[in-house]
Amino acid sequence: MNKPRIWTAETIAIGSELLLGGRLDTNSLFIADHLAACGVELRYKTTVGDDVSDIVAVLKTAVRRSRVVVLTGGLGPTIDDLTREAVARATGRRLARRKAALDGMIARLAEWGRTATTSQFRQAMIPAGADILPNPVGTAPGFALTWKGTFLAALPGVPREMEPMVKECVLPRLQEWLNAQKTVAVTPIVRRVLHTSGVPESLVDQKLTGLIPAGSPIQLGIYASPMEIMVSLTGPAAVKAQGPVTIDALFDETRDRLRDILYGEEGDTMESVVGRLLGEQKLTLAVAESCTGGLIGHRLTQVPGSSGYLDRVAVTYSNRAKVELLGVPAALIDRHGAVSAEVAAAMAHGMRERSGTSVGLSVTGIAGPGGATETKPVGLVYVGLDGGPNDTLTKEFRFHGGDRNVIKQRSSQAALDLLRRWLIKKGQG
Amino acid sequence: MNKPRIWTAETIAIGSELLLGGRLDTNSLFIADHLAACGVELRYKTTVGDDVSDIVAVLKTAVRRSRVVVLTGGLGPTIDDLTREAVARATGRRLARRKAALDGMIARLAEWGRTATTSQFRQAMIPAGADILPNPVGTAPGFALTWKGTFLAALPGVPREMEPMVKECVLPRLQEWLNAQKTVAVTPIVRRVLHTSGVPESLVDQKLTGLIPAGSPIQLGIYASPMEIMVSLTGPAAVKAQGPVTIDALFDETRDRLRDILYGEEGDTMESVVGRLLGEQKLTLAVAESCTGGLIGHRLTQVPGSSGYLDRVAVTYSNRAKVELLGVPAALIDRHGAVSAEVAAAMAHGMRERSGTSVGLSVTGIAGPGGATETKPVGLVYVGLDGGPNDTLTKEFRFHGGDRNVIKQRSSQAALDLLRRWLIKKGQG
Repeated sequence: MNKPRIWTAETIAIGSELLLGGRLDTNSLFIADHLAACGVELRYKTTVGDDVSDIVAVLKTAVRRSRVVVLTGGLGPTIDDLTREAVARATGRRLARRKAALDGMIARLAEWGRTATTSQFRQAMIPAGADILPNPVGTAPGFALTWKGTFLAALPGVPREMEPMVKECVLPRLQEWLNAQKTVAVTPIVRRVLHTSGVPESLVDQKLTGLIPAGSPIQLGIYASPMEIMVSLTGPAAVKAQGPVTIDALFDETRDRLRDILYGEEGDTMESVVGRLLGEQKLTLAVAESCTGGLIGHRLTQVPGSSGYLDRVAVTYSNRAKVELLGVPAALIDRHGAVSAEVAAAMAHGMRERSGTSVGLSVTGIAGPGGATETKPVGLVYVGLDGGPNDTLTKEFRFHGGDRNVIKQRSSQAALDLLRRWLIKKGQG
Repeated sequence: MNKPRIWTAETIAIGSELLLGGRLDTNSLFIADHLAACGVELRYKTTVGDDVSDIVAVLKTAVRRSRVVVLTGGLGPTIDDLTREAVARATGRRLARRKAALDGMIARLAEWGRTATTSQFRQAMIPAGADILPNPVGTAPGFALTWKGTFLAALPGVPREMEPMVKECVLPRLQEWLNAQKTVAVTPIVRRVLHTSGVPESLVDQKLTGLIPAGSPIQLGIYASPMEIMVSLTGPAAVKAQGPVTIDALFDETRDRLRDILYGEEGDTMESVVGRLLGEQKLTLAVAESCTGGLIGHRLTQVPGSSGYLDRVAVTYSNRAKVELLGVPAALIDRHGAVSAEVAAAMAHGMRERSGTSVGLSVTGIAGPGGATETKPVGLVYVGLDGGPNDTLTKEFRFHGGDRNVIKQRSSQAALDLLRRWLIKKGQG
């Protein structure tokens, strides 16, 4: 064992759709982050279908190797929701209808002007002796119990129900339970994250060569996705356990080495960073999208408060829409094609002029699979920005590999990053 | 055991970034689909970090409960790549540098004009007696072996390397191995899927009560997400193994019971169904979004060929944009508020008129967390549709629970579903 003083955890995601249905368990990542903050390290993730004996088998394996087990899913009202039964069977407890669980469910339904159906009553059947974990969003309560020296919590699989329940119900109970365990000291784990954009993983890797000194318990992670390369530093929270260099010092050095390609830290997203810059500089934005089809607008409006700076978005998918909504000259489209730097510039200009906003941003490109020509391949994308007279930009991108969705994602990221860099320069000037 | 004649499988995804790094194992879904076609059912998915003893423990659990085990990841050249060592240790085999593995790697690098580095030689260390699986894309070969009556394959974690290796190397070897096992007949598994919208999970469950007859090996799955309730039927492909009622007959009955709430089958999405109906009827569409912020446009343009019917989308986030881009009377907004049936109707009307398309679709609502008033709570959404004079619709929705993102998703689904129902009626008229 190379991690003797850290508590180990395991997540079990329950649902046949997670095995075969084209759907992934995303809950375990959220749980891993929150357990780490309590000094509990996620070591295993298991996914199992809606089959009582399979779930029981997985539970028995989990308690043999992990001190904390968090189950998600299988708490709904249907006959394939089997988590309650499996936990009862594995732990040798009876299932009993619990008044607190029932009352919470009825109260929640009443808020929505509904009454409980017979099948929903199943949701109030909880293993005997378990703590009920109220669900602040939906109708299915969770529960927690200890079994063979393991802390076990069962939560709904719906992320917007599971997430507040982890924060409000599971973590306080877990912390209390950990404090009561005298045998092993708990060392919280911290994880610090930086976000880069516009460069390949190999370049980030190269810039960070030799960052972590020998003998350091701090782990460096470099993770690629279509949108970005993310960098993380993970290690014990206590400074004296961090070895030759502290995690904060390494974080500063990482930031320094990646300076030109960083766009954010920790929970930042490109759209939240752009939104913050627009808000700080009291600027307003209008966007003209073509190949991204609305994705830039969707991303910008994921940020609460975006109505403060985002005035409008036009998805001008047809050439006629580019002419009518943005005033792009039809002759310009004829001459250069809709996917060209000239049309990107005209789209950004028209958008800014017609909306009266501080800045216009545009994207036009070929997301595929159709639409390519001899000279214009799938993945060719132009971004335009108009910040007023003598303050315009266009940039060409060629995205290789990846389907329609990946090209839309990378195009939206490239456009927002161009805007971010322009905003930073403007803020400094 | 309630599935005695089906072979069971398990995937093991190896890599610490899959536990903690914000990245998900997507390979297991691909593997599950391809194993099912061979009659092998995925029962468990496990994810484990880059720790030899943890990987060994997971391997030992896997061979106890599954006859087929597929590992992904941990075959690269770095010291974090520990799959080879873990398999050797678990199975009691030596690691030996194998000529075939080395030659394949050197040939691949030569194609790229490169030579092997010292660390890459590690990739040719394969457990003794294992079959080498050539990598047609990258440098790391995989391998396959049998151990304690279990077929075990180890593959790279990069999807574009893993996927051809499953098809070209693993499945033929697996099929041969299955044929040689005389004890259990192999039955391919089929899965059929239906999609519903606009109703809660409990209603779908109620409509399907008693669907599956006693003694049937066919499994019913009901899966909820913010967008829809999905229903699946899974069972053996051979008709005589399907028990009292065939899967096709059950599929037809399911379709019949859910008729009014179904929107699609198998790989359909709401946006692909709407796109198909628009294409069939040669109609064009323009969309005016407010609270959904571009999500409807993004979804519609995920469908290849959507430029054939989608003319434009306007995200009129500000009231001024609603007036300027859509011609919504400012007085109407003053009187009823931007979130009202009246403004939804005016948005759809203005969009259709100004774009000259067959139909205008609009959404206005409060996605939260801000923006609510005494009479207009977060989750209040209006959808409008304008198909020409005397052919208009508006509909009010009240979405309870869920954050900004969920309300955007549910609003986009409700709007597209309203359009779908209108298109079906129009097609029949």
